[in-house]
Amino acid sequence: MTALNNSFKTEISTLLANKDFAALKVKLTPWLAADVAPILSELPIEELAVLFRGCSKELSAAVFSYLEHNAKHKLLKTLTQAQAAALLNELPADDRTSFLHVLPLDVAMQLICLLTPEERKITQDLLAYPEHSVGRMMTLDFVAVHADWSVRESLDYIRTHGFDRETLNMVYVTDEGGHLIDDIRVRRFLLAEPETKVSALMDGNYATLTPTDDREKALQVFRKYDRVALPVTNTESQLIGIVTADDMLDVASEEATEDIQKLGGSEALDEPYTTIALTKMVKKRAGWLVVLFLGEMLTATAMSYFEDEIAKAVVLALFVPLIISSGGNAGSQAATLVIRALALGEFRLRDWWRIMRREFAAGLMLGGILGVIGFLRIVIWAQFSGIYGEHYLLVAETVGASLVGIVLWGSLMGSMLPLILKKLGFDPATSSAPFVATLVDVTGLIIYFSLAFLIMRGTLL
Amino acid sequence: MTALNNSFKTEISTLLANKDFAALKVKLTPWLAADVAPILSELPIEELAVLFRGCSKELSAAVFSYLEHNAKHKLLKTLTQAQAAALLNELPADDRTSFLHVLPLDVAMQLICLLTPEERKITQDLLAYPEHSVGRMMTLDFVAVHADWSVRESLDYIRTHGFDRETLNMVYVTDEGGHLIDDIRVRRFLLAEPETKVSALMDGNYATLTPTDDREKALQVFRKYDRVALPVTNTESQLIGIVTADDMLDVASEEATEDIQKLGGSEALDEPYTTIALTKMVKKRAGWLVVLFLGEMLTATAMSYFEDEIAKAVVLALFVPLIISSGGNAGSQAATLVIRALALGEFRLRDWWRIMRREFAAGLMLGGILGVIGFLRIVIWAQFSGIYGEHYLLVAETVGASLVGIVLWGSLMGSMLPLILKKLGFDPATSSAPFVATLVDVTGLIIYFSLAFLIMRGTLL
Repeated sequence: MTALNNSFKTEISTLLANKDFAALKVKLTPWLAADVAPILSELPIEELAVLFRGCSKELSAAVFSYLEHNAKHKLLKTLTQAQAAALLNELPADDRTSFLHVLPLDVAMQLICLLTPEERKITQDLLAYPEHSVGRMMTLDFVAVHADWSVRESLDYIRTHGFDRETLNMVYVTDEGGHLIDDIRVRRFLLAEPETKVSALMDGNYATLTPTDDREKALQVFRKYDRVALPVTNTESQLIGIVTADDMLDVASEEATEDIQKLGGSEALDEPYTTIALTKMVKKRAGWLVVLFLGEMLTATAMSYFEDEIAKAVVLALFVPLIISSGGNAGSQAATLVIRALALGEFRLRDWWRIMRREFAAGLMLGGILGVIGFLRIVIWAQFSGIYGEHYLLVAETVGASLVGIVLWGSLMGSMLPLILKKLGFDPATSSAPFVATLVDVTGLIIYFSLAFLIMRGTLL
Repeated sequence: MTALNNSFKTEISTLLANKDFAALKVKLTPWLAADVAPILSELPIEELAVLFRGCSKELSAAVFSYLEHNAKHKLLKTLTQAQAAALLNELPADDRTSFLHVLPLDVAMQLICLLTPEERKITQDLLAYPEHSVGRMMTLDFVAVHADWSVRESLDYIRTHGFDRETLNMVYVTDEGGHLIDDIRVRRFLLAEPETKVSALMDGNYATLTPTDDREKALQVFRKYDRVALPVTNTESQLIGIVTADDMLDVASEEATEDIQKLGGSEALDEPYTTIALTKMVKKRAGWLVVLFLGEMLTATAMSYFEDEIAKAVVLALFVPLIISSGGNAGSQAATLVIRALALGEFRLRDWWRIMRREFAAGLMLGGILGVIGFLRIVIWAQFSGIYGEHYLLVAETVGASLVGIVLWGSLMGSMLPLILKKLGFDPATSSAPFVATLVDVTGLIIYFSLAFLIMRGTLL
């Protein structure tokens, strides 16, 4: 980080406190908007409101893009309608769309009405794409040239069309109808002789996204091709926008956060943990917690069927938490691994049989390990304590055998449930680990007590 | 995706089967290595080995970069020493380093000896940086110019130094001592008059990484500054490499995968789920599963202290799974949210008190919700069944109160454990959700039976 950051913000704050707009302008002019924006965006809202009245539209827009959605909303409310309109029109279309989307519909509509007809059209077009689709993320600031232009003509064209914000890494080649026919790295224009035809730089090989692609799929395409930008084409193969890798970094983070939060057994918060309102967070968490609780109530029902057995052999009850949690842990592991592999596109649904065989083998081995440890623990313990009674060997056998069965069962359920959910059209991450654990708990109890009944019949039971 | 992909691979396969290298060359020449590499990398290893003998070093290197580490290793073994040497020397330094790192030390050293002295020096330098550090990921293919050069001189310099592989998005300005003094987007060179001095394009504001930065930190810097590339400087502020956003996409994925797998209660697999050897996967999973199992054994110990109570009131045992799983679920939620927020840099350790207060409030509300549901469930059920006996109200009170206490306790433990682990220098994701659940299970049992003792003393107990 440059040393600029530290002193710069304090100086700006002082100038803002004094409303010294002339000095502010002098201070800010030498900098590129994109370079000071991240620093200025850390100022408190009130100072930002003053800043926005005294600085260029371009800088306001850049700073605005760096704010959290919440701060954006608060800031807009402190501006006059004319100021808000100027700011919104200046924003890049993709940033504006993602901000408008999180607002209540009525507020969003009011803001959309402030836009110029041209920007309003773009915004409404982008908002028409599904949430989390490529269409929502694309920017329209791309450079398209024609194949019969020379490199010199292309560079002149690029120079005369001031492309302000997004990085210019790729130049796109389109025909008269706007159909994408190639993408060329800007570097190649730099290295080529000015009179070379664009067609001579073309290789005809390019990857594209479509606006309705899910952003998770876009992420896979980006990772596969190692590109800093990918073009977006409509069903007629016309170039309608581009998506850049730096935006994908945010997507990668957000997608992972969503999956992680769902795996942790709550809804995706969609807001930073530190800033989300407490009641909103509790609501997001309570939903799944109650569903899991209702599911888990079945354990009480299952247990009640074995009440007589427990009364006869209280020792059985002692191992209930151990047994069911082991099944749950094994299920969590399998579910997590499978869900992540699905998200990364490592396999497809039709591979389910291969996954199942793998998990069968893994579950058997893992269950075997835990079963042996459990068996030994009880047998060894029984040498020093009378806690498990004279039939400790039967107890050890029951616990050991149950562990094998339950860990195997947990691994199978954990790996298959995400695939089933995906097949049914749900997000596999929703079959979060606790959800699998709950399912495994109920079935685990039945396995445990059934085995106990088989092994201990005639002795303890 | 271009239509090329589908037919292209089949045609290449056929040419390889016939060892028709002449036709192969004709077929491949029109394409850029970076464009066919992802397609060719999907060929089976045996065909790749044939391909590498018949195609250019540049293309071999590009294809090689797209392979999984495992495939790379297998492929190298099929090549002659001279072929392997040529290939390794051609690889970009960052790709070579990350590949060498996963090999057994002796194999890696043999391969390093095949490198030219210059490449060997670079490789050993990069390997000297810690795993998952920025130093390991950086590439040396950057363009550095001097401030007193003109734009024309800079562009000539760029043209004469053929920069082959990495995208050229930023031009770096250094002084005579190689110290970084600015970074400038290539776009600005395109838009500037040829006689403009580089110094006129400079704004003196730039973000940098250091080679020892953890890649997770680099990810945060990238996300903050929305850059497609960031320069890496040593402690003397000398420019020593750059990191590009497309490489960061892979990092973002891998970091998320690691965290998700740890949260799911296994070690990070470090290899795709679908290709990792079964025994290796079982080993990675068994470790934590056994640790959790040993921890969970404490539940049997805890339960045994309450054996008399269970014998007197078997009804208590029925709710054990429900009670402990609710605590575990609440703990998982809190742990997951806090771990993810930590990974995203949303808060710091010193904020622990704020987090704890939030989780106290959230835990109390969530526990209240579950407590009421649990209480009502038992009371209503008791109207239709005699299963809970005449003291069903006491049972309902015990379960309801325990749920409040256990969910609150789970939320607090879940949120604080990651912070404690981080404070102690461990990866907070290691305090995986099942780990929290196990801890909460044991303490939950104590809370439950203690409350039961208080509420039921003199009646059921």
